[in-house]
Amino acid sequence: MTANLGAELHRWVRDLYPIGRSLTGDGVRETLRRLGELLPIVVQEVPSGTRVLDWTVPPEWNLREAWIENSRGERIVDARRSTLHVVGYSRPVRARLTLAELRPHLHSLPDRPDWIPYRTSYYADAWGFCLTDRQLRALPDDRYEVCVDATLQPGSLTYGECKLPGETEDEVLLSTHVCHPALGNDNLSGIVVAAFLGRWLSERRRRLTYRLLFVPGTIGSITWLARNESRVDRIAHGLVLTCLGDPGAPTYKRSRRGDAVIDRTAAHVLAGRGAHQLLDFTPWGYDERQYCSPGFDLPVGCLMRTPHGQFPQYHTSADDLAFVRPDALADSLELATAILELVDRNRVFMNRQQKGEPQLGRRGLYPPVGGGPPGPDQLALLWVLNLSDGRHSLLDIAERARLPFDAVDRAASALAAHDLLREVPSAR
Amino acid sequence: MTANLGAELHRWVRDLYPIGRSLTGDGVRETLRRLGELLPIVVQEVPSGTRVLDWTVPPEWNLREAWIENSRGERIVDARRSTLHVVGYSRPVRARLTLAELRPHLHSLPDRPDWIPYRTSYYADAWGFCLTDRQLRALPDDRYEVCVDATLQPGSLTYGECKLPGETEDEVLLSTHVCHPALGNDNLSGIVVAAFLGRWLSERRRRLTYRLLFVPGTIGSITWLARNESRVDRIAHGLVLTCLGDPGAPTYKRSRRGDAVIDRTAAHVLAGRGAHQLLDFTPWGYDERQYCSPGFDLPVGCLMRTPHGQFPQYHTSADDLAFVRPDALADSLELATAILELVDRNRVFMNRQQKGEPQLGRRGLYPPVGGGPPGPDQLALLWVLNLSDGRHSLLDIAERARLPFDAVDRAASALAAHDLLREVPSAR
Amino acid sequence: MTANLGAELHRWVRDLYPIGRSLTGDGVRETLRRLGELLPIVVQEVPSGTRVLDWTVPPEWNLREAWIENSRGERIVDARRSTLHVVGYSRPVRARLTLAELRPHLHSLPDRPDWIPYRTSYYADAWGFCLTDRQLRALPDDRYEVCVDATLQPGSLTYGECKLPGETEDEVLLSTHVCHPALGNDNLSGIVVAAFLGRWLSERRRRLTYRLLFVPGTIGSITWLARNESRVDRIAHGLVLTCLGDPGAPTYKRSRRGDAVIDRTAAHVLAGRGAHQLLDFTPWGYDERQYCSPGFDLPVGCLMRTPHGQFPQYHTSADDLAFVRPDALADSLELATAILELVDRNRVFMNRQQKGEPQLGRRGLYPPVGGGPPGPDQLALLWVLNLSDGRHSLLDIAERARLPFDAVDRAASALAAHDLLREVPSAR
Repeated sequence: MTANLGAELHRWVRDLYPIGRSLTGDGVRETLRRLGELLPIVVQEVPSGTRVLDWTVPPEWNLREAWIENSRGERIVDARRSTLHVVGYSRPVRARLTLAELRPHLHSLPDRPDWIPYRTSYYADAWGFCLTDRQLRALPDDRYEVCVDATLQPGSLTYGECKLPGETEDEVLLSTHVCHPALGNDNLSGIVVAAFLGRWLSERRRRLTYRLLFVPGTIGSITWLARNESRVDRIAHGLVLTCLGDPGAPTYKRSRRGDAVIDRTAAHVLAGRGAHQLLDFTPWGYDERQYCSPGFDLPVGCLMRTPHGQFPQYHTSADDLAFVRPDALADSLELATAILELVDRNRVFMNRQQKGEPQLGRRGLYPPVGGGPPGPDQLALLWVLNLSDGRHSLLDIAERARLPFDAVDRAASALAAHDLLREVPSAR
Repeated sequence: MTANLGAELHRWVRDLYPIGRSLTGDGVRETLRRLGELLPIVVQEVPSGTRVLDWTVPPEWNLREAWIENSRGERIVDARRSTLHVVGYSRPVRARLTLAELRPHLHSLPDRPDWIPYRTSYYADAWGFCLTDRQLRALPDDRYEVCVDATLQPGSLTYGECKLPGETEDEVLLSTHVCHPALGNDNLSGIVVAAFLGRWLSERRRRLTYRLLFVPGTIGSITWLARNESRVDRIAHGLVLTCLGDPGAPTYKRSRRGDAVIDRTAAHVLAGRGAHQLLDFTPWGYDERQYCSPGFDLPVGCLMRTPHGQFPQYHTSADDLAFVRPDALADSLELATAILELVDRNRVFMNRQQKGEPQLGRRGLYPPVGGGPPGPDQLALLWVLNLSDGRHSLLDIAERARLPFDAVDRAASALAAHDLLREVPSAR
Repeated sequence: MTANLGAELHRWVRDLYPIGRSLTGDGVRETLRRLGELLPIVVQEVPSGTRVLDWTVPPEWNLREAWIENSRGERIVDARRSTLHVVGYSRPVRARLTLAELRPHLHSLPDRPDWIPYRTSYYADAWGFCLTDRQLRALPDDRYEVCVDATLQPGSLTYGECKLPGETEDEVLLSTHVCHPALGNDNLSGIVVAAFLGRWLSERRRRLTYRLLFVPGTIGSITWLARNESRVDRIAHGLVLTCLGDPGAPTYKRSRRGDAVIDRTAAHVLAGRGAHQLLDFTPWGYDERQYCSPGFDLPVGCLMRTPHGQFPQYHTSADDLAFVRPDALADSLELATAILELVDRNRVFMNRQQKGEPQLGRRGLYPPVGGGPPGPDQLALLWVLNLSDGRHSLLDIAERARLPFDAVDRAASALAAHDLLREVPSAR
């Protein structure tokens, strides 16, 4: 099943790979349209020029074509071959230039001579091309014709939102960035895993409400935060999803708070799954930078495999369809579902009989002949009773008792069924 | 002296060993009557049917005889030989049964074929016998006559209480369970050490008030808590005493609070005495489960040697007079007295001259010629002065200064005698 | 330059070495007069008999001469040869004594037969001499004439104070004791390093106000505290400076609070400088005992190299000019300046745009072409923005971000220049 799931996830990555995404424009719209097959995404359009916190929604950028021709009319660089060839948000240009004049507009990676870098120029009036260093060094002194046929004009910023209501209004925010073009791990893996998570959530009973965001990086989360400023206090937990397809072990980066329930949940789930890495919050990374800015300080961590910038393929043409592995995608999805399942089941109960232990025997919760050692379920019952004073969640109890969360959850359900516990609102 | 003390303690264990104790009944009464030779115990009788917290005081059980005879009239199992042979609280029965019919009522330990298990059936309408697995396996297909001649009818639950008033009303609770029949370590060792502790306390000046409880396990402490619910806030420290005679190293299990004064005192005393073990609270064990239930959350730890369930002899006939060692009993008593002595002497003082050091020299508390290194007593004086700001007890100071408690206590007494300190109420 | 600085510091130690300092008297006055060449010291005189906290300012002691002559008129011990030969505060005496009568007044070090001990008798009516154990053991049975020609009469206690005002009234207290005679490390090293620190501070821009105290040990700091009791709450940070010339590694002893800014600053600076030692507060040592008495509890640590009492030369004639090393003096001065520089620059800022990140690009604080890895300066900008919520100082941020303080300070200055931060008052 995992093999099938991995293959299905990878097929989605492959299908979305050629679409020319950027901060704004039709590539984002087309991506969201296709994800609509998996879950009901509401597409939001925010006009260029809108003030969002300290920022302004930029003009919309759409690229028709971008290429460099040599004097023999050969298109030596062409964005049709790879969307990485053109610097994102390049302004339109049509000119004939010497190599010396062209050179400042060309970006390559001398250390990785066969890879094309990914570069953007979102908020500067510039244009440029990216190519392999091998090609760059071989360029003869010639006259080149360059063409960036793009529109950069008032339009809108596009993002997708999907709210899946639960029994309570407490929300789980799941956010992934959708602004990167042909890069597989960063972030088609995140986009696809998020969409599948959404589909899975949409089909199950939800105690919590879930909100999935498919936003362009930075400006997208800032726009969403600006438009939802008064409602962010509903966010009880959150995950930024990114870089979930590479072969590295899973990594969880804690929220700014460092000990939020989502932080402890991710650590608890990862501890039961083998090799992994836990990182403290840093203000470098993806949209957790915005969700965890001091004025919001939301309990939002970041789930990934190898952190961005720590795999050499990062932001290059080598972050391709081969770098993204089906089994890694499936493992990431399973990990994310395990974290969300625990978050959803992690309730706080109040023992209704806090003075002394209640008599479990007459309720059939204890073996009738005493004197032998307790089984793990009995211990779970006793731990839940002892710590259900309104200050300990089931996760707290599992950690304190060193018992699996499942055992604690089952014990709590049994005790609640005998009216020995009542659920109380969770602290966050 | 320790050898004599150990022998005396062991003699008491031996004398109490044959008495048929259970949750209720004459065995408990006879045990308390004998302990009355050591300290003035008030015997409390609580009628069957009394509601105590979530529980009900059970009918009283008294056993006259219990045996199994084979078809040749041979008593192959007889509670007269060992009180363990009959399942505690067995209902009366007199019947002739095939082996197949008898078999569900027989309990043995296949892994320990020569030991008789200890089993009870307090709150279920059942009967049974315990025997060695070797004997069980050798039973021929035969017709057996079984007899449990017992009364199980309205009576009362019996417990013993001894209050030793001190200079303050702050109480130290010492609790031990008295419901086990012929088991030496669990819990004749605890009963006898508690009684000797009581005798020692009754003969000395007491700053604190001490209350000793000799109660049947679980229902006894629940009964006491139910009847004293409004007065438990006087309990400043407490110890459950159990399993104090086996050859293992001492173990202290912390209260639910984990950092109560009794927890830190026990750790401090044990640290100065060689091998030992400190355990965090768990809601499995003895009556600390009730004292530390969330609605009471009393600062009560548990002092033992090898924890129950961690020695193979636990709850079997092998927990016998040979398993209980005189030197272990004496060591446990000395350890408990050391803990109580520290608790009793652990006061909080306020330095009356908190700005700058007071001039110790003119009060004769400093050597007249300066320049040499300070002795430990000088350091203790300075530490007590520096930390006696009302927030540090003498134990706090000893721990912070890494000095023996005695040195700190002596320094405080010297400073108080010079009117440089005044005692203030202790936080708990 | 360090070599020159070390030589200059050592020259000062050498010049001050022969002066006969004590708790009071002309030796202290002469020492302060000479230090006046380095910084403007205000000399304070407090009359004998003045009540200061629990103490009384003692009579002033001035020694003219002190010697022992044998029956042949040979001066076998003479304070002119070493100020250590006479017990400090010896009362005047002129007598002819047998060896047996003289013996109780003689102090030596049997374990160090060639060293003269340093002994005082400040608050007792006594007299005595210190000499090498070798000399003491060789003394023949003879009649000796002893002379202590000293005045011990109403006068005053002398100390020096130098206040260097800064932009704020928050003060840094720098305290060193000046009561020791010919002892190089304890404490001419501290006196000279403190005076050079004062000179350095007097020549630079100061955010904080600095107050240097040159006081006799214990009674001097107690006197200053008594006279400034209502103003000590201005002291935001402080260092006692002592034993700064021996060849050992630097040691910092924390304030009583243990986590004061000065404690964390010293630890941060030392961590970047190789071998060193951090000690918790103890109420034994130098004037930090008074500053950290519970009624004041000031954030004052102690900077030294080998702690007093831990080098064998301590309080003996072997703590001489050879034991004090020029390079150690220079290193200590540099260390102290680094600590004070960090304390002075350690401010707290409030991010004016706490919701989301501000757009650094349009302010020129970000490289225009994105996609590459961030340099350390960019990270510092992001850390400062993320943690400048009014609860984190620049030092907090440097520690949390594991960045050099300098990088964080530079980032904060850049952000403040763009009006993205405003300074707020520091918590202490």
